[in-house]
Amino acid sequence: MMNNLKLKLLREKMKDQEIDAYLIPITDPHLGEYLPGHWRIIEWLTGFTGSAANVVVTAHFAGLWTDSRYFIQAENELKDSGFELVKLNIPHTPEYIDWLEENLGPDPVIAVDGRILPVGTLKLLNAKLGWKNPIIQLNKDLVSGLWTDRPPMPDGRAFEHETRFTGESREEKIRRVRSGMKKLRAGYHLITSLDDIAWLLNIRGSDVSYSPLLTAYVLLSDNSLDLFVDPAKIPHDLENKLANAGVKIYPYHEAANALKKIEGSSILITPGTTSAALYYSLPADIEIIEEVSVPTRLKAIKNSTEIRHIKNVMVKDGVALTKFFYWLDKTLGKEKVTEISAADKLLSFRLEQENCQGASFATIAAYNEHGASPHYCSTAESDVELKPEGIFLLDSGGQYLDGTTDVTRTIALAKPTVQQKTDFTLALKGTINLALVKFPLGTKGYQVEILARKALWDRGMNYGHGTGHGVGFFLNVHEGPQTIGTGASGDMKTIFEPGMLTADEPAIYREGEYGFRTENLILCIEKEKTEYGQFLGFETVTLACIDTSLIDTDLLTGTEKDWITSYHKEGFSKLKGFLRPEEAEWLENKCRPV
Amino acid sequence: MMNNLKLKLLREKMKDQEIDAYLIPITDPHLGEYLPGHWRIIEWLTGFTGSAANVVVTAHFAGLWTDSRYFIQAENELKDSGFELVKLNIPHTPEYIDWLEENLGPDPVIAVDGRILPVGTLKLLNAKLGWKNPIIQLNKDLVSGLWTDRPPMPDGRAFEHETRFTGESREEKIRRVRSGMKKLRAGYHLITSLDDIAWLLNIRGSDVSYSPLLTAYVLLSDNSLDLFVDPAKIPHDLENKLANAGVKIYPYHEAANALKKIEGSSILITPGTTSAALYYSLPADIEIIEEVSVPTRLKAIKNSTEIRHIKNVMVKDGVALTKFFYWLDKTLGKEKVTEISAADKLLSFRLEQENCQGASFATIAAYNEHGASPHYCSTAESDVELKPEGIFLLDSGGQYLDGTTDVTRTIALAKPTVQQKTDFTLALKGTINLALVKFPLGTKGYQVEILARKALWDRGMNYGHGTGHGVGFFLNVHEGPQTIGTGASGDMKTIFEPGMLTADEPAIYREGEYGFRTENLILCIEKEKTEYGQFLGFETVTLACIDTSLIDTDLLTGTEKDWITSYHKEGFSKLKGFLRPEEAEWLENKCRPV
Repeated sequence: MMNNLKLKLLREKMKDQEIDAYLIPITDPHLGEYLPGHWRIIEWLTGFTGSAANVVVTAHFAGLWTDSRYFIQAENELKDSGFELVKLNIPHTPEYIDWLEENLGPDPVIAVDGRILPVGTLKLLNAKLGWKNPIIQLNKDLVSGLWTDRPPMPDGRAFEHETRFTGESREEKIRRVRSGMKKLRAGYHLITSLDDIAWLLNIRGSDVSYSPLLTAYVLLSDNSLDLFVDPAKIPHDLENKLANAGVKIYPYHEAANALKKIEGSSILITPGTTSAALYYSLPADIEIIEEVSVPTRLKAIKNSTEIRHIKNVMVKDGVALTKFFYWLDKTLGKEKVTEISAADKLLSFRLEQENCQGASFATIAAYNEHGASPHYCSTAESDVELKPEGIFLLDSGGQYLDGTTDVTRTIALAKPTVQQKTDFTLALKGTINLALVKFPLGTKGYQVEILARKALWDRGMNYGHGTGHGVGFFLNVHEGPQTIGTGASGDMKTIFEPGMLTADEPAIYREGEYGFRTENLILCIEKEKTEYGQFLGFETVTLACIDTSLIDTDLLTGTEKDWITSYHKEGFSKLKGFLRPEEAEWLENKCRPV
Repeated sequence: MMNNLKLKLLREKMKDQEIDAYLIPITDPHLGEYLPGHWRIIEWLTGFTGSAANVVVTAHFAGLWTDSRYFIQAENELKDSGFELVKLNIPHTPEYIDWLEENLGPDPVIAVDGRILPVGTLKLLNAKLGWKNPIIQLNKDLVSGLWTDRPPMPDGRAFEHETRFTGESREEKIRRVRSGMKKLRAGYHLITSLDDIAWLLNIRGSDVSYSPLLTAYVLLSDNSLDLFVDPAKIPHDLENKLANAGVKIYPYHEAANALKKIEGSSILITPGTTSAALYYSLPADIEIIEEVSVPTRLKAIKNSTEIRHIKNVMVKDGVALTKFFYWLDKTLGKEKVTEISAADKLLSFRLEQENCQGASFATIAAYNEHGASPHYCSTAESDVELKPEGIFLLDSGGQYLDGTTDVTRTIALAKPTVQQKTDFTLALKGTINLALVKFPLGTKGYQVEILARKALWDRGMNYGHGTGHGVGFFLNVHEGPQTIGTGASGDMKTIFEPGMLTADEPAIYREGEYGFRTENLILCIEKEKTEYGQFLGFETVTLACIDTSLIDTDLLTGTEKDWITSYHKEGFSKLKGFLRPEEAEWLENKCRPV
């Protein structure tokens, strides 16, 4: 079915049911980032394949809101769909609500599938539109009837994530979460984020692309732990182990009913990851405590076992990247290499590494102007051949049983121009200066982010996305609660704590030309304690080499040059033992002091 | 009456009225910073003279919460008062509410004078303590009966602030505020901040120390402007002018009653500056829109007339400071100079300047270890003689009809030590680097603040207060909505806009030794517009020289040295024409390139 026909049929349903505006958020009942096919409604309806969007349809308007990462991609994908791209001023903010406020008449009927609307968004809708006296219908799935070949709900099997990897038993984690609930005076805790559940129970699944997640809900109290999941997904031995930890298994679809029957005084929920439908299943008289979930706060702080594994995974991931870039260097101009074949080749190098389960997100292999779309994803139509000229940006990551990686390198495929070297170096200065910051305990991501942007801002340049996200441990590559951003979105209360693993990815984009991004993972560590308090800092744990041919050393301070030299020295020393002699020699050359 | 006797009598009243906890915020019905004597309850009860505090009294505990600026001062002033100092972890946060939550039993009776409790704080109290089922009594003034010599309400006369200073008529300001109300869909706007009212109506008063404020309330609608004020304070010709602008005058004490009678659909109030007592005077069915007041947002952006005056005031203020430091240089060691006599002398130099009305806050003239208290205020007991040795910190400002100043200089009275030079220079780097930042439109204070702290953080040093506050125009020296802070308090939504005038005052304190602070005022200005957006920056408008004998140039970058040299060059060229030849020669010498 053509997209504009789908839109026509959707509008007919809206008309029949007297709906003025239909909303589609890009998410699923767990409000996750990577959607099972069943929930890729926006992709089916509009053709847009990006990861962040909101869709609004009225009788005379159909719009898709997304952020600057996706402007170029969305313009292409939305062609002939009947949908307009609406450019977000601030990423990850519900600016479509402002549009609704400005454009809907009085007493509007707004409909949405409440299973995929975060309750936090519903509250914003009510707050902003309240004066228009809206009727918000939360039970409207207008899509299922039209989407005849809609994929079924995922049915991947669960498996145990062993304690030798996690460093902590599920019993101990449950104990710590219960202790966190007590501090918040919560009798119950509804856990809706799939990565929270996977972390808490030391289980993983395969319901979602790129993240080893199992579709489930958890309802926890001081003396019960109910897991709502398709029982067919749980192998028998895992079921026994879960039972030993006090986990009772119920069918997935019974979660809402179970909430209705809760008898307790208070429940802790996270508005951003709890659907409006579940929220309104809670008994009217229960006190609802709205906070970041306890597992989200706990799992962000990696334990010593996890940190040991992460450092080892960085060696494996660095080896795979080195082998890939060596291969590319030797192959380019001799055999045909495209964005997609390069990404496939990189994945094959990762899969050679022990415990590697696949990619942690859709690889961004972006040649020249494609690199100017921060989250470009090659398709059969967009794929291009790499030539021995121009710029190649590669943002990729691996899922290993012993950790998750996320790394971006941008390389010049021939001698770069002066502007390219300037741009690359200014963005790289951001990566370095954020990694080098020292700060007192209590500091938040939005306080340090300018260090990633300052060299660009000084020249009137900028990038339109955040600078850093938390990274999971064999879990989501984008994980909360910490972020390094401008403070416009995300949790403003989270401070850095030792053990947090965060991405550090300043960038610069030249539309129609190229993009540069150097992304490392940085681990929060303790620095000295002084009369002014405990100071913290970061340790860069990524090891893959940076293309020094793109560096203009005149733009670097001595400290920045020293950082690059010692970064490369450490990387070479840790990776060389796992490389073939010709690869090691190649890497040594790449790692020469700047 | 001794303070511990007052506490005893207060506790007796609490016992009689079955009150478990009595709260005293340090404010007045307009929630202002500088209190008329009538509202200096905490000073009367505890002896503490600082500007930020909260007091909690229970049967077995009496505590005063304040921030690190006041730790040393409070410890001294609270001696023998029966009150304990409770040190705030984060300045300007209501941590006493956490204490109440931890220490009060179930169903506690909490009492407060609701006229001086911000409604925002009341909501926090309810949110935090709700689970304890508290009874919060808002009509408890337990102090008046004990405080027999309580000063009366202030009765200062109002006067007009002429358009040649303000650059905008009251009619035009009223029109712009009404337009701002429309955008927020507010039928009424209750304006409680005295500086908002003074700005809006181009009037000034003399009810409060240091700020030319008139005690009043304003209730604004699209077709009415009611001013609640003691009519005796308004001269006849001003009354006529106000009447011409549509202002109707009502007695001050009728404000609450007028609110009760409002017939309208919505009212805009600012929770942080509206008392709980007034808030609960609003009709139950009115929609309450809680936002920063419209005048607060408008008056922060200085118009071109104000900016022209501000730059001229900086010359006058710089001349006064230069004359003072010249005088000190020539006098020290010959005549007796104390902290207080120095502050008096500085004020006399300011008062010689055209349009100067007095000091804009209590001068901090702090010798040696006194400088380690960021808001030290000399008293007859603490006053010490300045010797030709050690460090002298001087934070002062003037109120001129054509602008308000705030400037801190720290000077060495003899050859400084290596540690002193290091400390001074690291804090000065903060002042410079914040002034030099360039940033895209949309940037907030908490995003840039690290630039003021980074040189200190790099060495495990820090200061326990914010870095910058807005500054009024012949109004409050501390003015919102913008701040340059860590983001832990204050309005998180305010972006920098051209025309905002903000303090830039990084510092370092060594308890028992000294404090260093260099404070300038920086004006937000437009920089270039690029493909990445409009960029803004700051222009330092303060002109007083900085003591270069305290600078360790080895710690400065070339950019920082250039900044100091050009700062001094501009200051000297603008000030020299207003100085006696010997003063000009002295200043020229002080302004030599570093």
